Formats: sequence, C-alpha cells, structure tokens
Amino acid sequence: MTPVGRRPGNQDTRETILAAARQAFAERGFDRASIRQIATAAAVDPALVHHYFGRKDALFREATAIPVDPDVVVPHVFAEGPDAAPERLLRTFLGVWEDPETGPMMLSLLRSAYADPTLAALVREFFLSQIVRRVRPHLMGRVPAEEIPTRLALVASTLFGLASARYVLRLGPLAELDAEAVAKMAAPTVRHYLLGELTSS
Amino acid sequence: MTPVGRRPGNQDTRETILAAARQAFAERGFDRASIRQIATAAAVDPALVHHYFGRKDALFREATAIPVDPDVVVPHVFAEGPDAAPERLLRTFLGVWEDPETGPMMLSLLRSAYADPTLAALVREFFLSQIVRRVRPHLMGRVPAEEIPTRLALVASTLFGLASARYVLRLGPLAELDAEAVAKMAAPTVRHYLLGELTSS
Repeated sequence: MTPVGRRPGNQDTRETILAAARQAFAERGFDRASIRQIATAAAVDPALVHHYFGRKDALFREATAIPVDPDVVVPHVFAEGPDAAPERLLRTFLGVWEDPETGPMMLSLLRSAYADPTLAALVREFFLSQIVRRVRPHLMGRVPAEEIPTRLALVASTLFGLASARYVLRLGPLAELDAEAVAKMAAPTVRHYLLGELTSS
Repeated sequence: MTPVGRRPGNQDTRETILAAARQAFAERGFDRASIRQIATAAAVDPALVHHYFGRKDALFREATAIPVDPDVVVPHVFAEGPDAAPERLLRTFLGVWEDPETGPMMLSLLRSAYADPTLAALVREFFLSQIVRRVRPHLMGRVPAEEIPTRLALVASTLFGLASARYVLRLGPLAELDAEAVAKMAAPTVRHYLLGELTSS
C-alpha cells in the first residue's frame, strides 16, 4: 500500500513515517525496532524510509526531535579527556538551551516528554541507545564499567534538573545567572557523578 | 454576589476559590496576592475563603496541591543540623514520591507545572515564599546569606532532576535502584550545593 503519486519529501508521508517510528522506538526500544516494521506500520516501502531519513540512528533522532547529534556532541564533550568533560558538557548543554533556535525545541521536547509516556520512552531510549554507548569508551579505565550507566543517569538527572529549574520553572536565582556561572556551579556535581566515588557520602 | 443556598464545603465554590487563588498567586506572587482579591475574583465573601481554607499559607498549599507542609518538612530535614540535612532531605523527598498516596500527586503536579506556565509560576512561588524563607535560618552562619537562594535553587534542581529521571523518564539505572541507594548517591551533591564552596570547580 505504498502511497502513489506523492513526490519524495511529501510532508504527510514523512509525518506518517515519523509517527510510526515514535511508536516503534517507544514500544520496542531502539535496538529491536526495525526500519522494515516501521515502514509496514506506516504503509510505505522500507526504501522510502531510507530515502527520507537515512539510517536508523538518523530516523530515531528525527523521531525524537532532539536537536543534538550524539556523534558530534559526545566527541566534542570528551575532546580534552574525561577531566575536562564536566564543564564542556554543561557549556554545551546550556548552549543548546540558550540558542534561540534549539532552545525552544528542547523546551517543547521536555514538555512533551513529561506529558506523554511515549515521548518519555523515546527520551529514555535516546539516552540508553545513543548516549551511554558512545560515552562508555571515554570512561573505560577510569571507573568500573558496570557503574557507567548509573553514573550517566545521574549526570542526565543533573541536566534535566538544571533545565527544569532554569528554563521551565524559572526558579529565581537559577534563571537569572548567566549560563557560564551555572556551568561552573554545577561542574563539581557532574564531575562527582562521572568520575568520583559514587557512594562516598 | 456571594453564592446563596450553598452549604460550606460546596465543591464548586471551593474549586472556584482555588482557581482564583492559583491565578492570583501565579500573577502577583504569594506576598502580594491577598485573600480579599481572591475572594473578589471568585465572587465570594473573604470570610468564606478563610472558613474553607484558613490562612493564606494553607490556601496557597491547597491551590498548588503540593502534598508537603513546609512547616513540618523543613524542621524535620534540619532536625540534626545542616550536616545531616542532605540525606534527610533526599530520604524525605524520595519518600513522598515512593508513597502510593502522595507519589501520584507529585507526578501529576510536576506534569502540570511543565505543561502550564501558571502552575510553573505556583511551584516557583512555593519554592521562593515557602521554602527559602524557612530554610534560611538553618543555614545562617554556615554560608553567606546572599548565597542562600542560589544554593537552594541548585538543591531544588537536584530534586527535580532526580524526580524527572526516576519517576517521569524512568532512566534505566536510576529508576531501578532503591530509593535509599539514590539518596546516598545524590547526598554529596546536595551537601555541596548547601554547604560547599559554590564555585570551587
């Protein structure tokens, strides 16, 4: 039942594919969802999905609408090694929020993830399938491998918390400080979660 | 235009008052909103507002639907002094979320605050008017007074972040650990924000 007479890039077809992709990634997770299943659900040919969106990673990113490419961001954050990563991560993350183009996308994404369990599942999958596995090699040898997912979840919670306090709830002082000051204040936390003793308290 | 022939406790009247209160607290802030204005907006007698909800604090708490009484929680968290406060705070906060009665209320509140700027403003007002001023005396002498709002906003961001990661997005490891383990892992962060050197990084 491939749509006929529609030129490539047709908005309706793209949206149908993206909706099917969101459903599939949220339900089955990134690894188990396939382009073939998504194409079937969208009633299009798998080749059309590839034609519009490229590889599964790219389709996933477009389905989640996260305006960040982990293949660019993760190497950037670790470019000076793990010890410099906390400040680089915070500057990059706050930079995406401060940017007049990507900031509103992040806000809308966070709001949607809160309102809709399907989108919450997509953000979760993005974290587990796109972030954790790309960060892992940068931390190997510095911390026990089995702690890495927990450490990164704690880092993610720090980022969500800052975004919530600064951009959603606009909690007085945290909304008024400049991004660089916030990055400096939160850096010890990210450093602790990434590289410190996890249960030293 | 006081409603006539309705018995005290009438659900519609209560809801009308609460809606007017939400609007007033979100627009004018806790300090500047008055029972009299709220009564006028709800077209009831101020005495009826007092009769249903008691003092402004209590009306505010009911309007925000935050299932936590700062007059109980703040003294509890600081009962063993500021050094024990981080773990006590985290245990108390996660306890509210783990509780089958208050947990869903917190989730619904957080979702609403994300979706609706009026409710986001109420959560912000709750933090500034109910929490900061009650915590302040417990930190005086330990940290510079002017840093206290920023410190508490950073603590609040930690709590929002944990709640987001654990209960809303259910980020793998952070959703699976027991609450006590999460409290222990996050305690150094809360301690740092509450009592540490704010920009030591």
